[in-house]
Amino acid sequence: MKRSLIIGIMGGGNATSDDLDRARRLGCLIAQNGWYLLNGGRDAGIMAASAQGAAEQGGLTIGILPGNSARQASPHITVPIITGLGNARNGINVLTSDVIVACPGGPGTLSEIALALKNVKPLITMGFSLKEIPGIHLDTSDLHAADTPEAVIEIIKRLLTTGRVLLC
Amino acid sequence: MKRSLIIGIMGGGNATSDDLDRARRLGCLIAQNGWYLLNGGRDAGIMAASAQGAAEQGGLTIGILPGNSARQASPHITVPIITGLGNARNGINVLTSDVIVACPGGPGTLSEIALALKNVKPLITMGFSLKEIPGIHLDTSDLHAADTPEAVIEIIKRLLTTGRVLLC
Amino acid sequence: MKRSLIIGIMGGGNATSDDLDRARRLGCLIAQNGWYLLNGGRDAGIMAASAQGAAEQGGLTIGILPGNSARQASPHITVPIITGLGNARNGINVLTSDVIVACPGGPGTLSEIALALKNVKPLITMGFSLKEIPGIHLDTSDLHAADTPEAVIEIIKRLLTTGRVLLC
Amino acid sequence: MKRSLIIGIMGGGNATSDDLDRARRLGCLIAQNGWYLLNGGRDAGIMAASAQGAAEQGGLTIGILPGNSARQASPHITVPIITGLGNARNGINVLTSDVIVACPGGPGTLSEIALALKNVKPLITMGFSLKEIPGIHLDTSDLHAADTPEAVIEIIKRLLTTGRVLLC
Repeated sequence: MKRSLIIGIMGGGNATSDDLDRARRLGCLIAQNGWYLLNGGRDAGIMAASAQGAAEQGGLTIGILPGNSARQASPHITVPIITGLGNARNGINVLTSDVIVACPGGPGTLSEIALALKNVKPLITMGFSLKEIPGIHLDTSDLHAADTPEAVIEIIKRLLTTGRVLLC
Repeated sequence: MKRSLIIGIMGGGNATSDDLDRARRLGCLIAQNGWYLLNGGRDAGIMAASAQGAAEQGGLTIGILPGNSARQASPHITVPIITGLGNARNGINVLTSDVIVACPGGPGTLSEIALALKNVKPLITMGFSLKEIPGIHLDTSDLHAADTPEAVIEIIKRLLTTGRVLLC
Repeated sequence: MKRSLIIGIMGGGNATSDDLDRARRLGCLIAQNGWYLLNGGRDAGIMAASAQGAAEQGGLTIGILPGNSARQASPHITVPIITGLGNARNGINVLTSDVIVACPGGPGTLSEIALALKNVKPLITMGFSLKEIPGIHLDTSDLHAADTPEAVIEIIKRLLTTGRVLLC
Repeated sequence: MKRSLIIGIMGGGNATSDDLDRARRLGCLIAQNGWYLLNGGRDAGIMAASAQGAAEQGGLTIGILPGNSARQASPHITVPIITGLGNARNGINVLTSDVIVACPGGPGTLSEIALALKNVKPLITMGFSLKEIPGIHLDTSDLHAADTPEAVIEIIKRLLTTGRVLLC
């Protein structure tokens, strides 16, 4: 049995309607490609929008929740993982994802971007480009930027073709 | 959308052939009931056997892995969650499961039994009965024992009927 | 610089006055030996009593707290470690301690006993003896039992002499 | 008993000699003020330098280690906390510190900066200034910048005077 690719979508619990729309459409495309979608699981912002997009296409959605119960989960999460770890669950988001897509967000999203770079995971920013951060040395050799969900999918497919993403 | 029940199976990385056989059959029955199976994800003992049973029936299997990659996962795990937390992942096993089934095992399994009781989760031992442990006060009001996979399933169904397990 | 031995004391948030008294006296003796005391940090039961005993002798006390602030810490904890991890902090209690002393307690204490055995750490039960647990295979080659704080200290000193506890 | 202030110093495992020198001097000043120093505990870069500075003044140094033993700890760490959590220990660094000082570093340091802002902890960058990061919304109302260890200490003292840092 070959397991599915897991695409992690990070982003703010608050988001603009443009960013929410892109996240929902990206969720749709992930499901249509037969991939699993992972996010922080809560019923808010980019998490709720991307899960909804994938679930509406019958996709499998994994939510890595910070609290002690599934009560805070988006109804579009099919596999709620209850960590009880608070923000320490952000590391699980990153380690579990084969590719990480960062949408605009706050400090939580920034911590996930940082951990993706720390773990040398393919990272795609959608709707913005990461610039140099003074005082912080980052290896950006596997950092990509896209404006649209379609462009994100193209980058993922290219990463798969070139063997930059390997399922083990 | 109503999410599926998640049944966590705990147990040793080493196990007798009898216990492996029971774990595999329990995995089958869980999948046949349309429930998700969760375990520690590794390709060993009760984890591998129960995942195999569920996967052979087309069931969804969640593996909460202790290490930093999916490399150690059983091939029968469809949703590998990479925690990087070592034994601290045992708490996620327990919190994420709606019902916990403990098979014979070692100290890791004992820690999961303890956390299930701590979190007041329905706990079913299969193939053995938990007796009083001197010096340790345990609330065993939601502790059940079964000899066979079929008996485990009956207990789970009874818990569902009586509202002791609620999906939220 | 040689670092101090760290003795972890596990035990219930509720405890009998006898057990509280023993925990407090053990805390005193740990401090008098120049060792550090570690526990779960909360202002309750065995944690509060053992920290008080050590602090009254001017000892250093480390509290590994489950929540997000030091507010729940015993006033006798000099080094509060704020984990935000809930029960997953129990693993840190065990890994950080060179020797673990288990007093009577509930399921949380049982999870720490289990993790101590899992990590092959020297474990001393005070006030009770761990018996065989049906269905659970435990390697008890480094498990010891003591009735009094003085007997605990003697066992620790013997472990140090025989090289069973090594500071690295 | 009033507990000591805990100052967390974050920064790279690799660092320039200038940054190492500043970290060591900051460690000295923290100890001279009677405060505790906290860092990631490893025997490398900013962690080793700051611990050395504090230890040479007889200060207490807390190292929150990612691995499973104290073997990787700097010899200047007096209280090694063994988490076994990998990068997830970064959250403990931030939660346990009353004030966080970020030195130049890599993605690990960036994740700690992000978590400090997420948890609304006073954050001082030393040797660099955090600029706006496109796509990331950060509340920088408690973000400060300093060029020298002396300036860091002045900011901490001002935060204490104005009640921005409260020991609980």
